[in-house]
Amino acid sequence: MELSPLFWPVALNGKTISVLDETQLPQRLRYLKIKNYSQAVRMIKTMKTRAIGQVLLVFYTFLLYCQAIKDKKKLFPTLTRIAQSFNTSRPTFPFNFLTDMVLEWAKDLTKLEEKILAFLEMLREKRIDQAKEASLLFDDQDSVLTHCNVSGLLPLIGEFCRQQKKSLRFFVTETRPYFQGSRLTAWELERAGFNVTIIPDSAVAQIFAEGLVNKVITGADQLAINGDIANKIGTYQIALLAKNFGIPFYVLVPPPSKARTGKDITIEIRPDKELLTIGGQRIAPRRVKGYYPAFDITPADLITKHIYLRIP
Amino acid sequence: MELSPLFWPVALNGKTISVLDETQLPQRLRYLKIKNYSQAVRMIKTMKTRAIGQVLLVFYTFLLYCQAIKDKKKLFPTLTRIAQSFNTSRPTFPFNFLTDMVLEWAKDLTKLEEKILAFLEMLREKRIDQAKEASLLFDDQDSVLTHCNVSGLLPLIGEFCRQQKKSLRFFVTETRPYFQGSRLTAWELERAGFNVTIIPDSAVAQIFAEGLVNKVITGADQLAINGDIANKIGTYQIALLAKNFGIPFYVLVPPPSKARTGKDITIEIRPDKELLTIGGQRIAPRRVKGYYPAFDITPADLITKHIYLRIP
Repeated sequence: MELSPLFWPVALNGKTISVLDETQLPQRLRYLKIKNYSQAVRMIKTMKTRAIGQVLLVFYTFLLYCQAIKDKKKLFPTLTRIAQSFNTSRPTFPFNFLTDMVLEWAKDLTKLEEKILAFLEMLREKRIDQAKEASLLFDDQDSVLTHCNVSGLLPLIGEFCRQQKKSLRFFVTETRPYFQGSRLTAWELERAGFNVTIIPDSAVAQIFAEGLVNKVITGADQLAINGDIANKIGTYQIALLAKNFGIPFYVLVPPPSKARTGKDITIEIRPDKELLTIGGQRIAPRRVKGYYPAFDITPADLITKHIYLRIP
Repeated sequence: MELSPLFWPVALNGKTISVLDETQLPQRLRYLKIKNYSQAVRMIKTMKTRAIGQVLLVFYTFLLYCQAIKDKKKLFPTLTRIAQSFNTSRPTFPFNFLTDMVLEWAKDLTKLEEKILAFLEMLREKRIDQAKEASLLFDDQDSVLTHCNVSGLLPLIGEFCRQQKKSLRFFVTETRPYFQGSRLTAWELERAGFNVTIIPDSAVAQIFAEGLVNKVITGADQLAINGDIANKIGTYQIALLAKNFGIPFYVLVPPPSKARTGKDITIEIRPDKELLTIGGQRIAPRRVKGYYPAFDITPADLITKHIYLRIP
């Protein structure tokens, strides 16, 4: 089964980490080469990589330094500094969940590299399992709406459905302002041979009303302990509208963060120029400001079913 | 009281009709010159003008031919041909409501020009009255969300509120794919001195949840007899979300068309390249299709109050 490039967009080759530059898609499938942690943090801040790419980048960055620094006395302080840099890179993403884990493993530096590699291998398997579990929620001829991008899981779900003799079609919101739906999700679904249609973010109620879609599935950037999720701005209103139309709303979730409920999650407000310009050209009039919360909180009671990433 | 250029975007000067090119805003305030009805229809099809601009263009085009064709025998067939061209230019807009009216007046060709001029004068006054009536719905410090563009009525409503010592602030959806919110509404509100903030179309539920907005007002491209409206795609979901949050949803409506309910209104499906390209550059991957219904139907029961254009 061929995986989407977005399923595992980061790799370590010798002393270089390759990161799929998602901002270049769908025009170019290009990997950026990075050699240190400050470059890694910049990749995240500038959204060259996101979602699972951020997670993988954290682990591969730690791995890079494990392999490069042979003096154990120097290694631990460096790992701590790397952890701090990642933790403050983007507010909505719970990096400390990952970095704390690595720092815990780093108490025995002799086994750290091995533990990171084992974790990555397990993560890959569990993500495939997550897609397989999700595939059981769909029936033949289902028409599925999604929003933003779920890092290669959707084509995989579609592929598992194919194996189960079920054919899915997809609708994808374009997902302003970064167009992850148009650029990433539509791209990976089309190249995997699925029927996919892009709609404006504003057409969700309309396509529900027209009966064009009978299920919704999205990812989540963060899962709170009570089941609330933070995900790309727009997820919340799609969930509200799905409820209004009696359409099931499924969410592929990461392991829970320390947030008790959605209220404990800080929503990242991105610079308004990301909303007011396209390709460097300003759409909006000068002097007008924008408000671009990059995420929103969807309360657990709007989620028909959470599909968990079952890592221990 | 200075009116927004969008309030009255068409004028007849001698043998030339000037049409504000809305696609150039906010970068350039430029008027296109047109000299015949096929150019007028093209302006509408290519969305150089829309909303009230379409209405005015219909009347000024008829006026142009009234003044140019002195042979009465030739005039009536020409007017009929013009009417047919407008009627088929865009499905959602009820042009025949306007063209039938002019053809009715044209039964007495000697008074046609005078009747068109009187109608336009009355239209201007009634639109100002409509804005004044709407202004009474707002309280000091209200924060108002709007979608797309209401042809200069919003700055006018804000101005009437100022006269009543009430200060409004505005949130505007960017309104993909044409960005009427970013390009037109934010522009006309800012130049009239109002506090205006642009949000992504996907952030409506989020700003409602944050309590940033306490009223919604939009325009309507068509009003059915039962009070349902057709308006820019996205209006329907904003109305559903407003209801969910208990936020009043007001609509500035034109006179009713012949549609009995929203079900009788045909929704225009625009070419998907309008969604999949920006400034000629493709956002979406090749081979992927889009679905772009340009309008949706908001049922009357989601509308807190219709503000009517009270033309006889």
